[in-house]
Amino acid sequence: MKTLTEYLFFQTRERREMVRITDEVADIVRRSGVREGMALVSAMHITAGVYVNDWEDGLIEDFGEWLEKLAPAGRPYRHHHTGEDNADAHLKRTIIGHQVILPITAGKLDLGPWEQVFYAEFDGQRKKRVIVKVMGE
Amino acid sequence: MKTLTEYLFFQTRERREMVRITDEVADIVRRSGVREGMALVSAMHITAGVYVNDWEDGLIEDFGEWLEKLAPAGRPYRHHHTGEDNADAHLKRTIIGHQVILPITAGKLDLGPWEQVFYAEFDGQRKKRVIVKVMGE
Amino acid sequence: MKTLTEYLFFQTRERREMVRITDEVADIVRRSGVREGMALVSAMHITAGVYVNDWEDGLIEDFGEWLEKLAPAGRPYRHHHTGEDNADAHLKRTIIGHQVILPITAGKLDLGPWEQVFYAEFDGQRKKRVIVKVMGE
Repeated sequence: MKTLTEYLFFQTRERREMVRITDEVADIVRRSGVREGMALVSAMHITAGVYVNDWEDGLIEDFGEWLEKLAPAGRPYRHHHTGEDNADAHLKRTIIGHQVILPITAGKLDLGPWEQVFYAEFDGQRKKRVIVKVMGE
Repeated sequence: MKTLTEYLFFQTRERREMVRITDEVADIVRRSGVREGMALVSAMHITAGVYVNDWEDGLIEDFGEWLEKLAPAGRPYRHHHTGEDNADAHLKRTIIGHQVILPITAGKLDLGPWEQVFYAEFDGQRKKRVIVKVMGE
Repeated sequence: MKTLTEYLFFQTRERREMVRITDEVADIVRRSGVREGMALVSAMHITAGVYVNDWEDGLIEDFGEWLEKLAPAGRPYRHHHTGEDNADAHLKRTIIGHQVILPITAGKLDLGPWEQVFYAEFDGQRKKRVIVKVMGE
């Protein structure tokens, strides 16, 4: 069995931002030497997510608006009694998901034609981390 | 370590449809010879999902209505400027999830009494694919 | 390859309850002897979930209220024609997620500073089960 663990770092310009990371993950998989296995890609901060969907700017904006409707900012959340102002970011990341497992077949990410991996930042402008753990043979 | 990778194909009659796939996945697990491990079941198209829940027709209809409320079709999504009309399908699949990991213990899917695996199609009537990747020993 | 499979049991006092299980999972990982790998933590009942987020009471209450808004109890769900009254629990667990994969690095859960694992009960007061399956080397 082979494993490889790496970390991706993010410090976004905007508070909310979707960052495509498919190529970075594919590169880690290549360096792992794993031919058959899985890669876990998981946000290590609880106001960020990782998801698989379309690399299309319009849809990415739709996602942002939709998440704002389902988990709006600026409400009197109890979490804000701690001094925080990011409860909505915790909720948004729950809807979009915080991790994905990508299959590796014949040494490559085994993704469908439109599958792209994204880091979803909902409370950025500071340093954050994603773990990529490859496991297989 | 053993691995087995197979693909399930779907071409649903309806645009939206939930298809139970527990038996198909169990069969792949059996053929893999894996006694202890995990099976990844993941939609390879970004307008479809995979989820675990109840095999009860009423609840399956409830799911459909509920997803329509949270991610309605027919809205002026930006994604539709590309000529697509399926933005809601991308959102619905995000709520329901696009993949599950099923534990394998003593050569069998280790599921609770009511756990059933479903393929969730939100933009069907065309050929789509799900990867099943078994990994273990 | 090493694997270890254990089950956590829950019988909550309240119908809805969030229970922190990070320490229990970390203990299973320790006993597995796995240095590099992954731990699957998955609810075996379809009205419960498992998620990773903040260990902060205010936010946990926010989660409860928010899930009640998105997936309210007491509606005329079709599932209730079977005699059940818990359709909302099936929906709530879908939003929060029913499983997580936790990376193991150098023999320990490789979590970010605020990541905590929770069992999310939405229809409790009876015995339920979560599988923890550790796999690695």
